[in-house]
Amino acid sequence: MPSEFELIDRYFRRPALREDVLLGIGDDAALVQPPAGSELALSVDTLLEGVHFPAATGPVAIGHKALAVNLSDLGAMGADPAWATLALSLPQPDEAWLEGFCTGWFALAQSHRVELIGGDTTRGPLGITVQVVGTVPQGQALRRSGARPGDRIYVTGTLGDAAVALEALSGRLPLGEPGERACRRRLEFPEPRIGAGVALRGLGTAAIDISDGLLADLGHLLQASGVGARVELEDLPLSATVAGLVRDGRIDPALPLQGGDDYELLFTVPEQAEAELRRRWRTQRCRLSRIGRIESQTGLRLYRHGIPQAVPPRGGYEHFRD
Amino acid sequence: MPSEFELIDRYFRRPALREDVLLGIGDDAALVQPPAGSELALSVDTLLEGVHFPAATGPVAIGHKALAVNLSDLGAMGADPAWATLALSLPQPDEAWLEGFCTGWFALAQSHRVELIGGDTTRGPLGITVQVVGTVPQGQALRRSGARPGDRIYVTGTLGDAAVALEALSGRLPLGEPGERACRRRLEFPEPRIGAGVALRGLGTAAIDISDGLLADLGHLLQASGVGARVELEDLPLSATVAGLVRDGRIDPALPLQGGDDYELLFTVPEQAEAELRRRWRTQRCRLSRIGRIESQTGLRLYRHGIPQAVPPRGGYEHFRD
Repeated sequence: MPSEFELIDRYFRRPALREDVLLGIGDDAALVQPPAGSELALSVDTLLEGVHFPAATGPVAIGHKALAVNLSDLGAMGADPAWATLALSLPQPDEAWLEGFCTGWFALAQSHRVELIGGDTTRGPLGITVQVVGTVPQGQALRRSGARPGDRIYVTGTLGDAAVALEALSGRLPLGEPGERACRRRLEFPEPRIGAGVALRGLGTAAIDISDGLLADLGHLLQASGVGARVELEDLPLSATVAGLVRDGRIDPALPLQGGDDYELLFTVPEQAEAELRRRWRTQRCRLSRIGRIESQTGLRLYRHGIPQAVPPRGGYEHFRD
Repeated sequence: MPSEFELIDRYFRRPALREDVLLGIGDDAALVQPPAGSELALSVDTLLEGVHFPAATGPVAIGHKALAVNLSDLGAMGADPAWATLALSLPQPDEAWLEGFCTGWFALAQSHRVELIGGDTTRGPLGITVQVVGTVPQGQALRRSGARPGDRIYVTGTLGDAAVALEALSGRLPLGEPGERACRRRLEFPEPRIGAGVALRGLGTAAIDISDGLLADLGHLLQASGVGARVELEDLPLSATVAGLVRDGRIDPALPLQGGDDYELLFTVPEQAEAELRRRWRTQRCRLSRIGRIESQTGLRLYRHGIPQAVPPRGGYEHFRD
């Protein structure tokens, strides 16, 4: 059976990606050279089997998602990802699993130039803790707390696809191809909105990534900013699959508001910055939708075609809340 | 039952410790300002119940040790600790446990001015992954790879106390007070050698912290440096308790070489730097022992009073090696 050191060598030591990594895997700590004039954004997330991904999830998806959810946090700060560490707990050294995991991880890591600079492998229940560090020019990071009354609320991509995939995987929602494949891809291979976050530097007033569902994460942003919001439900961006399911009454129309795992960016810009936002978005490949506006009155108000709607429960996943 | 957010608020949000933390816990990522002219050292370690600490370990010790083993890695790089993140997986939100954990964590964190800037709490088997980031002046980090023939080999503190404590806790070695208490303190509350590491900047040629036992970690240092070593067993620093156990034949004399969890620094300095080392050590509170010298011939040679000794197996804990 291979030792921890052999596994690290075989799977996790890769050619250097970045010149600012002075010392990578293999010493007591990694050494990096932070760029002058930058702040660093640091985020950490744990993924546990059965909690953050279904037990049937393949290793390639797990490798992708473990890194993607962390990069998503950096995207929400407007940061450029640079370095990552990986703490991996495995029941046994299953080399086919490791190979798949690394395929998913390193494909995403290379596309965003994130270098794996350290890690720890232990034997235990399957669990993955990833920490990423990104850089952002002095004073340009996007926080949750900067939304002001009158700001417009935007969201990237589409909402609810991952939640629909979970319903389909659980057997509660027979979906059929190609809808199931498309939604499952969104659940298993979320695309961190790094380019979108960078495009918002100096323009967005607040940002958050949607991991717990739009209602929950918009709630976090509003609370941090001390404001409220009005959201137009007919403007929520839905994929063809999810829109069809809502139209046919096969899913609760609140699902795209409540479902987690979207990993889209939710952000605010002042009204006078909307033209510049659209200009900058010409080079972004992800959809951009204006869904509402910030109001001084706290709380969330939902409308559909101008008619007030009840606000459904948040539905975001909370650990330790049964 | 308190939610994840309530738990974070109640236990992990503390008054700011450092001016270079621009944004702490509570956003998508933390923001920090790295000092100009410094490199960053990053280390990550996971502690699992039953693997890295006995199941009976109290929460105060776990909180201390989770941070200490990571700080120990920074000490071995000559880095000054600055920021930490904590990923905590708990079977249930046991508030008495959390309170103890935080007592151990924050006491050590404050004494080294390490600010907790981010984290993730999940429900699952007890596991703790900590990442620490430290700063070190440009080009002054201590690596494993710089040892050269003729360099002297030093070690801080004493060796084998933690291994003796594990033997005593398992019931295999009835020890009695005060020896058991002293050794157990070394096992549960290791003191990261931060000051020692900083004192070695610009002087040490190579360094590593002893987590897997002297034989294993000296082996890593020798391998990384492409050299060998001669070690004088009579010069190994032993506490009164461990020395007594060896003298009375109650433990294998190899235990201090093999036992893990010492978290002392093992380092090399050129012969001509020894006077400066002793001068710098006047302000260090930990013991300093010269135990051997680096040789060009690879491999490790052990002597006791000038007589060659067999090299025992390393005995360091390896995950995935049964």
